[in-house]
Amino acid sequence: MDNTKEDLAGLKAACLEAARESIAEHGVERLSLREVARRLGVSHQAPYKHFASRDHLLAEVIRKCFQDFARFLDNRERQQNPDQDLSCLGSRYLQFALERPLEYRLMFGTPWPEPAEEVGLVKDALHAFNILRGDLKGIHGDSADAQPKVDLDAMMIWSSMHGLASIFQSSAVRHLDLANGVQAQAPAYIMDRLRAMLSAQG
Amino acid sequence: MDNTKEDLAGLKAACLEAARESIAEHGVERLSLREVARRLGVSHQAPYKHFASRDHLLAEVIRKCFQDFARFLDNRERQQNPDQDLSCLGSRYLQFALERPLEYRLMFGTPWPEPAEEVGLVKDALHAFNILRGDLKGIHGDSADAQPKVDLDAMMIWSSMHGLASIFQSSAVRHLDLANGVQAQAPAYIMDRLRAMLSAQG
Repeated sequence: MDNTKEDLAGLKAACLEAARESIAEHGVERLSLREVARRLGVSHQAPYKHFASRDHLLAEVIRKCFQDFARFLDNRERQQNPDQDLSCLGSRYLQFALERPLEYRLMFGTPWPEPAEEVGLVKDALHAFNILRGDLKGIHGDSADAQPKVDLDAMMIWSSMHGLASIFQSSAVRHLDLANGVQAQAPAYIMDRLRAMLSAQG
Repeated sequence: MDNTKEDLAGLKAACLEAARESIAEHGVERLSLREVARRLGVSHQAPYKHFASRDHLLAEVIRKCFQDFARFLDNRERQQNPDQDLSCLGSRYLQFALERPLEYRLMFGTPWPEPAEEVGLVKDALHAFNILRGDLKGIHGDSADAQPKVDLDAMMIWSSMHGLASIFQSSAVRHLDLANGVQAQAPAYIMDRLRAMLSAQG
């Protein structure tokens, strides 16, 4: 790579990081290419070498969240059985959501900008979802007939974990006088119940 | 009620409504008693007759969301069996979340301000949660021993419905190539599975 190319690749990564910081500080609404250039101390035009518009930049920021998320899920300790693997997947999912709330919110709580398809965001989000589908295909099979079942169970597991992550971050959960230990036990309890339900079907 | 009292009660309700509108337009961060007074065309001091601070106002706005939410849940068609009643409760929960996203976000996505306890917000949130607990006590019993089970199952059902509401509003769900009909079927499918699980235990 000659110096110019290296500088360009470096600038792209720096823009993504500066955009993430800007969002963390001021929210998605205030993100702009101008603000990113200001943070990096480069000319107003420089970010346009990599991002056709502010929405392209935002789409690439969210895409990067999905890439990190999928990598984090992929790095789990693999289990022999798909239903055991689902438990690992569930706890990795929750861990990511709680440790990286900004990335999590960008993926699932922010309307994706229009260039989502164009920059590959959709492809990377699909890749993350297909990790969950993979375990369920291991249980239900991979035929066309099994597909609705795989997707319904994927929605069931995803919504449980997604809901739990969101509830844990809510003020409400701390004020409901839950019985001792319930909050700590809830993730494993719920994953166990979901697994029991899946193996009863399988 | 003499005119002054009537005016005062009217002003309180008007402040809550103006606060809700301000939040809808500009977000929670920009809410202030001054902005509410401006919207109502009253003096800057007027809202202080009802709200000691901006945080007291916000706490009362969120409290009102929980009151509306609990009333909406309470108005469901009651079923004979608690497990059937849970399905009604689940679909009312989803309906509220999808039809009134601002109220829903204020209850569960916004950090409660410090006067939450003082203004009765906590009590009203607990009332809403106890509707769910009520059905589960009908299944597991109301003894001290049953309490952790009631609360764990309440967390399981709440997280499923909460997650589903949130997923339905995400951009992600529209891009995952879900099998035909899966999104429409998911709420009933998930509630049925949860009910089957509960009756297998009961």
